Amino acid sequence: MMETNRLSELVKSWLYEAGDRIKQALSQPLEMTEKTDRTDIVTNVDREIEQFFVNKIVEYFPNDRVLGEEGTNRYLEQETERTWIIDPIDGTLNFYKQQDYFCLMLAIEQESGESLGFIYELMRDELLWGGEASGVYLNDVLVKPPANQTLVEGIVSLNSGMLLENTFALQTVAKQAIGVRMVGCAGIGIKEVLLGKQAAYISYLQPWDFAAGRIMAKSLGIVVAEMNGQELTMTQRQAVIFATPATYEEIKKMQEL
Amino acid sequence: MMETNRLSELVKSWLYEAGDRIKQALSQPLEMTEKTDRTDIVTNVDREIEQFFVNKIVEYFPNDRVLGEEGTNRYLEQETERTWIIDPIDGTLNFYKQQDYFCLMLAIEQESGESLGFIYELMRDELLWGGEASGVYLNDVLVKPPANQTLVEGIVSLNSGMLLENTFALQTVAKQAIGVRMVGCAGIGIKEVLLGKQAAYISYLQPWDFAAGRIMAKSLGIVVAEMNGQELTMTQRQAVIFATPATYEEIKKMQEL
Repeated sequence: MMETNRLSELVKSWLYEAGDRIKQALSQPLEMTEKTDRTDIVTNVDREIEQFFVNKIVEYFPNDRVLGEEGTNRYLEQETERTWIIDPIDGTLNFYKQQDYFCLMLAIEQESGESLGFIYELMRDELLWGGEASGVYLNDVLVKPPANQTLVEGIVSLNSGMLLENTFALQTVAKQAIGVRMVGCAGIGIKEVLLGKQAAYISYLQPWDFAAGRIMAKSLGIVVAEMNGQELTMTQRQAVIFATPATYEEIKKMQEL
Repeated sequence: MMETNRLSELVKSWLYEAGDRIKQALSQPLEMTEKTDRTDIVTNVDREIEQFFVNKIVEYFPNDRVLGEEGTNRYLEQETERTWIIDPIDGTLNFYKQQDYFCLMLAIEQESGESLGFIYELMRDELLWGGEASGVYLNDVLVKPPANQTLVEGIVSLNSGMLLENTFALQTVAKQAIGVRMVGCAGIGIKEVLLGKQAAYISYLQPWDFAAGRIMAKSLGIVVAEMNGQELTMTQRQAVIFATPATYEEIKKMQEL
């Protein structure tokens, strides 16, 4: 088994290379295709970056399982030491419309427990990475567990559709919080909670949207849960909350009203 | 009268100096005070930066009028060649809670018509500045008038309270748009519209929140208006829209339903 710090150094070098490719791609016209609807889109860059990572993983770790947002589904039926989960561009609509407010996410789940998560907001040169064994770092600086903010003290990031429909009493959550934000990028919303800048992030998420953040949340004391109380699964979209323990308890109580 | 390009170079040098002071201030504890309520706050840094600009203006242009968010109200009853409007930190809640997503705004209204606006998002080293005479620049690069995006193609930035209360049919606007964003900083919302990254920004704004953006909007073909159809005033908070002409017409029609 590769040592955790050798593995993280290797993956960081891939992320920086991928980041340079994404920045270069922004200087050329993007090819955009709708997936399920007009707000759910994919570009040639999403596909190319996913393939870039799959090629690297196959080269270095030919027996590993790989799950990717853009269709990669490799060896998923087998038991392997490591599972890689890739979101090549999280916030594709922002990437396409704003050339900003997107990130690249990668999770490595290891049976040994030494799992690693990576959230790379490349336009800001911010790489949040780590896990339980290594601790969590923002670039080279160790991240401290954030203060246990309550809802009344904290900014919350919410999904606009869920807020409008008042799913999970989110209108009550919004009114209680000191501010409501929407960025349209799960990685950024999760990063803000892990860094103590926001008290909660709530949205419908796919496994590749929360996998990296969940690994890092463990070592920072941030709660990650399914809003309806069930276990998070790696097989479907679900309503997920990342929150400080205090804010999580407050929001959980609001569900029972 | 100072030439427009000499004036803009001078003001840019002040903005960079103020930006360095703000970044330095972030390394020390901030003193925070509530103004009208728990979400409307001011820090020692807001006050110090406003004073920094007032001192510069008094030194170089002792007869000019100055209006500032943090209480400056100098010679406002007099007729003078220039009026300066200062928002030392726009997005103070973000500044305090996130140390990000805030900006410094400055407007210089000149009777000659050569007005200048400055929106400085210093954590991103992005200074959007200019006016009708000079054109608008992002740092050193001339900004082209943005594409005339319709609502269905465009991301919109909305105020969370207005969205929840469905003021000005904003829930219909939100559902029509390709995405809804909330950053909690007028300068950033306006910047995204001026740069063609979003189709509209709508919020309750004070004069210092929209003055710089309005000056630059003119030369980029972006509509700036009061949501209820009245003239924008420099004396109170009002509901303001920045939008592409196409999106503005669509949203205006929604008001008549």
